[in-house]
Amino acid sequence: MLPRGRPRALGAVALLLVLLLLVGFFLFGGDPEYGLRAAASIDEDPHRNHNLSASVLQLPLSPKCELLQVAIVCAGYNSSREVVTLVKSVLFYRKNPLHLHLVTDAVARSILDTLFRTWMVPAMVVSFYDAEELKPLISWIPNKHYSGFYGLMKLVLPSALPLSLARVIVLDTDVTFASDIAELWALFAHFSDEQVIGLVENQSNWYLGNLWKNHRPWPALGRGFNTGVILLRLDQLRQAGWEQMWKPTAKRELLTLSATSLADQDILNAVIKEHPELVQPLPCVWNVQLSDHTLAERCYLEAADLKVIHWNSPKKLRVKNKHAEFFRNLYLTFLGYDGRLLRRELFGCPSQLPPGAEQLQQALAQLDEEDPCFEFQQQQLTMYRVHITFLPHQPPPPRPHDVTLVAQLSMDRLQMLEALCRHWPGPMSLALYLTDAEAQQFLHFVETSAVLSARQDVAYHVVYREGSLYPINQLRNVALAQALTPYVFLSDIDFLPAYSLYDYLRASIEQLELGSRRKAALVVPAFETLHYRFSFPTSKAELLALLDEGSLYTFRYHEWPRGHMPTDYARWRQARAPYRVQWAADYEPYVVVPHDCPRYDPRFVGFGWNKVAHIIELDAQEYELLVLPEAFTIHLPHAPSLDISRFRSSPTYRDCLQALKEGFHQDLSRHYGASALKYLTALQQPRSPA
Amino acid sequence: MLPRGRPRALGAVALLLVLLLLVGFFLFGGDPEYGLRAAASIDEDPHRNHNLSASVLQLPLSPKCELLQVAIVCAGYNSSREVVTLVKSVLFYRKNPLHLHLVTDAVARSILDTLFRTWMVPAMVVSFYDAEELKPLISWIPNKHYSGFYGLMKLVLPSALPLSLARVIVLDTDVTFASDIAELWALFAHFSDEQVIGLVENQSNWYLGNLWKNHRPWPALGRGFNTGVILLRLDQLRQAGWEQMWKPTAKRELLTLSATSLADQDILNAVIKEHPELVQPLPCVWNVQLSDHTLAERCYLEAADLKVIHWNSPKKLRVKNKHAEFFRNLYLTFLGYDGRLLRRELFGCPSQLPPGAEQLQQALAQLDEEDPCFEFQQQQLTMYRVHITFLPHQPPPPRPHDVTLVAQLSMDRLQMLEALCRHWPGPMSLALYLTDAEAQQFLHFVETSAVLSARQDVAYHVVYREGSLYPINQLRNVALAQALTPYVFLSDIDFLPAYSLYDYLRASIEQLELGSRRKAALVVPAFETLHYRFSFPTSKAELLALLDEGSLYTFRYHEWPRGHMPTDYARWRQARAPYRVQWAADYEPYVVVPHDCPRYDPRFVGFGWNKVAHIIELDAQEYELLVLPEAFTIHLPHAPSLDISRFRSSPTYRDCLQALKEGFHQDLSRHYGASALKYLTALQQPRSPA
Repeated sequence: MLPRGRPRALGAVALLLVLLLLVGFFLFGGDPEYGLRAAASIDEDPHRNHNLSASVLQLPLSPKCELLQVAIVCAGYNSSREVVTLVKSVLFYRKNPLHLHLVTDAVARSILDTLFRTWMVPAMVVSFYDAEELKPLISWIPNKHYSGFYGLMKLVLPSALPLSLARVIVLDTDVTFASDIAELWALFAHFSDEQVIGLVENQSNWYLGNLWKNHRPWPALGRGFNTGVILLRLDQLRQAGWEQMWKPTAKRELLTLSATSLADQDILNAVIKEHPELVQPLPCVWNVQLSDHTLAERCYLEAADLKVIHWNSPKKLRVKNKHAEFFRNLYLTFLGYDGRLLRRELFGCPSQLPPGAEQLQQALAQLDEEDPCFEFQQQQLTMYRVHITFLPHQPPPPRPHDVTLVAQLSMDRLQMLEALCRHWPGPMSLALYLTDAEAQQFLHFVETSAVLSARQDVAYHVVYREGSLYPINQLRNVALAQALTPYVFLSDIDFLPAYSLYDYLRASIEQLELGSRRKAALVVPAFETLHYRFSFPTSKAELLALLDEGSLYTFRYHEWPRGHMPTDYARWRQARAPYRVQWAADYEPYVVVPHDCPRYDPRFVGFGWNKVAHIIELDAQEYELLVLPEAFTIHLPHAPSLDISRFRSSPTYRDCLQALKEGFHQDLSRHYGASALKYLTALQQPRSPA
Repeated sequence: MLPRGRPRALGAVALLLVLLLLVGFFLFGGDPEYGLRAAASIDEDPHRNHNLSASVLQLPLSPKCELLQVAIVCAGYNSSREVVTLVKSVLFYRKNPLHLHLVTDAVARSILDTLFRTWMVPAMVVSFYDAEELKPLISWIPNKHYSGFYGLMKLVLPSALPLSLARVIVLDTDVTFASDIAELWALFAHFSDEQVIGLVENQSNWYLGNLWKNHRPWPALGRGFNTGVILLRLDQLRQAGWEQMWKPTAKRELLTLSATSLADQDILNAVIKEHPELVQPLPCVWNVQLSDHTLAERCYLEAADLKVIHWNSPKKLRVKNKHAEFFRNLYLTFLGYDGRLLRRELFGCPSQLPPGAEQLQQALAQLDEEDPCFEFQQQQLTMYRVHITFLPHQPPPPRPHDVTLVAQLSMDRLQMLEALCRHWPGPMSLALYLTDAEAQQFLHFVETSAVLSARQDVAYHVVYREGSLYPINQLRNVALAQALTPYVFLSDIDFLPAYSLYDYLRASIEQLELGSRRKAALVVPAFETLHYRFSFPTSKAELLALLDEGSLYTFRYHEWPRGHMPTDYARWRQARAPYRVQWAADYEPYVVVPHDCPRYDPRFVGFGWNKVAHIIELDAQEYELLVLPEAFTIHLPHAPSLDISRFRSSPTYRDCLQALKEGFHQDLSRHYGASALKYLTALQQPRSPA
C-alpha cells in the first residue's frame, strides 16, 4: 500500500513540501475582507480549497457514528414530496446516524409522520415541530417570496429547536445532495469562536442591485449569501441573543423596504452586512444554485465534485440552463430511487433500529425460506412505505351522510381514473401500489389530465411496492383509514358506479339512519360488461334492458356466480325498497358501511378471498346486509391480473391461499366462538373450484 | 472557509504534528514481509490507511479529466447482464473519462456492442477484444472454477491489450462500485518501480489450506490475494517478460496440482509467492469479498467507507451473510438504476460525445417545445438503449422454411407469455419495453415460470423506456432485426395463434415457395374473443362454429372493421387454397414475410397507423397479399392501453397522428412516385373515425 525504497523517500519529501505549503496557507492565508472573499470564491477552484482543508482535518472532525442534526421547514403536499427526495439523497450517501428536525404544518406533519414511521430507516430519528406555533414570531414580516411564511421560520430555529441542540444543518426542501452530508457537517470545525453561521455565496447578481430599473435588493456583502444550505451554531446564537440581532435589523430595513423579496435570506444578509464576523463562507459546491440567471457554472465547471444542488428557481426542474439536463438527471436519480433500499444499517455503529423494526426482523427471521408459502408469509409481514395524500387534496366539508369511494389500484389501472371521476362526483380515497419511479409517472399522468387535475376531493395514497404478491387488503386498509367522511363505499377500481350512485347513497344513508340507529352494510349490486366501449345505463330500467338483451351480465355470472348470488338479482329486478339478505359462503358484495367498520384482513395477499373474509367479519359483527333497489355498479373488462394467472396455474398458490383461509377461520373462532362455526361449516361444503 | 486567529494557529500546529507522523510512517513504516502485512491488514483500519495516503496525494495523481482504463472479461448472456450493472455503478460515481476494454465471446460482443452503441454515454469509449483469439493461450490450463476459460484470460491481458496501454484496472463482472473509480486509479501512484500488480488480500482462509481433509490450495503468501479487482502496470509487465513469469510457475505447480481451483487467482498467487516484490497490496475496502465463508466483516465494520463489493460466491446475491441485505441493497441500487440518467457529460472536461450524439442533440435542439406535437417529435428522435437477448438463448438451427414469431410488449402483458409459448412451439423474437427495474421483475418472472424457463428458443430483447409514448414500431424493428430464421410472423402480443399455425406456416412457405419464387406476404386471418377464459378452437371447423354461435368475432368487428375487411372472411370460410387479396385503405392484417421485409416506420409512436403504414410499404414494394385458408389467430380481451385512451380523449393526439400520416405519405410519394398516389387518394376518402 505504501511506496518503498527510493521512490518512497522522494514521495515523502514531495509530500512534506506540499504539507508545509498547506500549513502556511492555514496560518497566513485567507482574506480579512469576507465580502470580497466570498464574492471572489465563485471564480476559484472551490473543490481544491475544500478538499485540502476538509480531508486533512476530516478524521478528528467527523468521528464515525457521530449523530448529525438536520433541520428542514416543510409545509403542504408538494413540499412534502420534495422533502422525501431530499432525504433520499442524504440517506444514499450518509454514513452517520441522523436526527431530522422537521418544522411542519398539519398537512406535512401527517404525511411525513406516516411516511417515516413506515419507512423504518435505521439510524434516523425524526422529530416534528409545529409551524403554527412559530408563525406569530415571524408573521409580522411582510414577504413577497413564494415560500410564504415558512421560509422565514428558519430565522427562529435557535429558539424553536431543543436547547440541547448545539449545531444543526438547515436545508431548504429544494436541495439535492450529491455527497455525504458528514463532509458538510465537518465544516463546522472551521468556525472561529465568533462565527455562528456557515453559508455559500449567492450565485447570482441579485444583491448587487440594478437587475432592472428600481431593483432595490436588501443590503448584503457583495453578492450576499444563499440560505438554501446553512450551518447554524445554535448554542452560540442563543448565547449571543440572536433574536435581538435579527429583529432590529429587519425592522429597520423594513422602514425603507416594503417587504422581503427572498424571505429569511434577505434578513440574514442584512444581519451579516452589519456583522460580517458572524459568517463562515462555505465552498460554493455545497450550494450550487440553479436559479434562472445563475452564475453557478463558474463553480461547477471548475470543481471536480458537486456536493449539493439547489433548485432555487420557482420553475424548479423546468429551469432553463445550459446544463439543466445534467442536474435533472442527478435529481431524477433520487426521485425514482427505491426508498426501501435505504433501509440500510450503518456498519460499525451501535444498532439504531426504528420502533418495531426489531420485532419485524425477528418475525421474518423465524420464517422458513424453504416453505412453499414463504412468499405469502413474508408479504404479510412487510411494512410498506406509505405516502398519504401524495397530491394536493381538499378534504370534504363535514357532512353527516357523506360517503367516500374507497379503492386501490396499480399502474395498469390508471386509465380507469378519469372514467371513475366522471361517474363518482364525491370524495374518493384511493391507494396506489407503485414503485417510486411509477409514483412520478402517476404524478405526470394526473397533471396532464384535465379531468383529474380539476378534482381536489380525490385523495391518492401511495403504498410503495415490495414483494411479488399484490397486498390487496393492506392497500384497502390504507385507503379506508384515510377516508374522511362518516361512510365509505368499498369498491374496486375496475367498477364504474351508476352516475346517480353518490347522491342515491347519501339519501339512502339518511333514510335508513345507517350507523346511528341501524348497524348495516348497504349492498350495491354488481354487474359486468364484456365490451370496453358500451353505453353506460343511466337508470335501472336501462340496465335491466341491457341485461335482458345480453349486453350486460350479473358480475362473474360465467365464472363465479356464488360470489354475488345472495344479492338475489331476481328480487332486485322488482324491488322498490331496500331488502335484507342473508350471508352465504363466498359472498363478496360491494358495500357501503360506516367509516369505523372492521378493517380488511391483511393476511390475504395476491388473489382470492380478500373481500370474502371482510364480509364474513361484517356478518360476524352482526351487520345487516341490505340491498339497495336503485344502486348498481358495473365491472369493465380487463386482462386477468398476474395474481389471478398465478392462482389459476399454480397448485402451490392455491394451497397457500387455503392455508390463509384456515388461519383466518381459526382466528375467527377465537374471536367469535361458537357463532363463527357457520363460516367453517360453509367452507367445508363441497363446491366448484374458483 | 478557513479557521482564523488563534484557533487557526493551533489547528496548524496540530496539523503539522499529524503530518510529520504521517511522513515518518511513509519513510520508515511498512513491513518488509508482505505476506504478514497482507494477512494482518484485514484486522486493521483500512480506511484510515487509505484515506491518509490517497487523499493527501490525490491532487497530483488523478488530474481532472484524466482518461481511466478498465478491462473486463465477459462471456455469455448472464455475464453480459452483470457487466451492465457493474458499469452502471462505475458511471454513477465516476468523474473521469473512461475507456472500457472488453474481452468478449461472440454472444457478449453482440449484446454489449448494441447496448453501448445505443446507450450513448458521453466520455466513455468501448473497445472489444475477441476472447476466441486468446483461448489457445490459456486453454491448456486445467481449471475447475465456474468461470471456465474466461477467468484465466486475465493472465494474458498484457499481450492482448494495445501496447500503448500502460496501466489498466481489471475487474471481474461480479463487482459493484460504491465510490469513484478514480480513487482506485490513484493508487497506481503508490507503486514502486518493481511493483506491477495491485491486489486486495483474499478475505477467506482458502489459501491457508486445511479447510477440509485433503484441501490443498495453490501456494500463496498468507491468505493470498483476490483477483476480482486488479491494478495492472501493463508496461512493466511487458518489459519484465510477464509470460515467462507466470507460465513456468503454472506449469510447475500443475505437475503436483491437477488443476486450478480458482482460475487466474491461483496462478497469480503462485507467482506472487515467488516474487513478492511484484505486488502492491491494496486497502481491503477496494474488494470486499462476499464469498460463503468471508472474513470481510473485519474489513467493513471498521471502514467508514466501502469502495467495491465483490459477489465472489457462486451463489452471488443469494449468498448467506449476516449483512447480505445491506450489500444486496447497494447492488439492487444499480440493478434497477435508470441507465439513461448516466448519459451525463463531465463538467470541465473536453466534450467527448459518442458517435451520433451531436447530430441527435442538434435535431432535438431544433424542435419547438411549444409545438403541440413536441412529444411525438421528441419520441421519434429518441435513441433507446437496447439490450438484445437479455436472457440465455439458443438460436434455432438453420432451417430453410423456419419462421419466427415477432412481437413486442410491456410489463402489463407479461401474463400473455406463457399462453403464447403453449400456442407457438417455434422460435420467437420479442421486444420488451421496460424500465431497468422492470427488466429485473421480468427476469424473475421468467425464472419462476416453468413454461418460460423451459424455452430456449424465445429471445427477449429489452428496450429501455424513455418518454411517454409507446414507441411501437421501433420495438417491432428491434424484434424483427433479431429474428434469426428466413421468415417472420409479424404478430401482436395479445393474440394467440392456432396451435397448428407454426407447422402450417412452414409447410405453406415451402409449398408457395415464398421468398424465392414468390414475393408475397401470407395473411393470417384475425379473430377476437371478449371472454378471458374460453376454449380455444383446435381447428378451423371449431373456429367457424364459435363464430356462428357469437362466441368469437372477426377482429375489431365492432370497432374498426376496415382494418381487416380486405381479408374477406366470407371467402375464407369456404377457401381450401390460398387466395390473393387487394390492398385497401387502413388494411392491417397479420402477415408472414421473409426476414428481409421492409422495416416498420419508426415515426409512428403511441396508438394508430403503425401497422397500416407497414402494409402500405409492403404493397408499394409489390408484395402479393395471400390469405392462408387454414391459418388463424385470436385476440384476447384486455383493457384499453393508455395510448388508445389518449387517442380517444385528446384531439391534439389525433392531430399529431394526422401530421405523422401526412409526413409518411410525403415520403411515400418521394420513394415510389406516381404509384404511391393510390394511398393518398384512399386516405382522403371520407370514412368513419377510428
